[in-house]
Amino acid sequence: MNDQLRTQKSTDTTQLVLQKTLDIICGKWRLYIIYQLGTEPKRYGELRRMIPDVSEKVLVQELKVLVSLGVVEKKSYGEIPPRVEYSLTAKGRQVLPKLLDLTSIGETFLEP
Amino acid sequence: MNDQLRTQKSTDTTQLVLQKTLDIICGKWRLYIIYQLGTEPKRYGELRRMIPDVSEKVLVQELKVLVSLGVVEKKSYGEIPPRVEYSLTAKGRQVLPKLLDLTSIGETFLEP
Repeated sequence: MNDQLRTQKSTDTTQLVLQKTLDIICGKWRLYIIYQLGTEPKRYGELRRMIPDVSEKVLVQELKVLVSLGVVEKKSYGEIPPRVEYSLTAKGRQVLPKLLDLTSIGETFLEP
Repeated sequence: MNDQLRTQKSTDTTQLVLQKTLDIICGKWRLYIIYQLGTEPKRYGELRRMIPDVSEKVLVQELKVLVSLGVVEKKSYGEIPPRVEYSLTAKGRQVLPKLLDLTSIGETFLEP
């Protein structure tokens, strides 16, 4: 592989991993939902109460995206009334410390 | 302050720092531009060549946003032809290691 091709390949790979990172982080409530699921699985209603500012439509949509990204998993129990719980996947738990640490970036810029 | 007020205040603060973090990170080319400025100041033309996929309009706009967020600073030298350089601010350099580390989140999710 010549240098130019190698640079192009490395640029493409960086863009790919960056895009995946941004998919997980960016979205008004995405990080916030992940933080709420950090400690333990939560039922939908609990999440709704913990993030009162989010609309029902957006919360459902953001949860769907997080499930499709492999960060969150949804578990339905065959109970009556139906019980549905959301929790972080193994990979979600693996990156949680880095995601939690992101608040320190905002803090740095909010300092006088 | 009662518990409910304290919780509300802490939620508001978390939302504020998170929003600031997202402002810095989110945006298709924002992190990418920060990475390119990580090592040394760059002239506009150099940035343009280092990120060939970005359109001129978007690059100019993203640089303006990064300057207004306090991450990047723009320095004009009174030379002819005019020379304009972009570099990270002190706070930008301070959070750079955390921003560089973000790629590892994408990597985790791209692993089989």
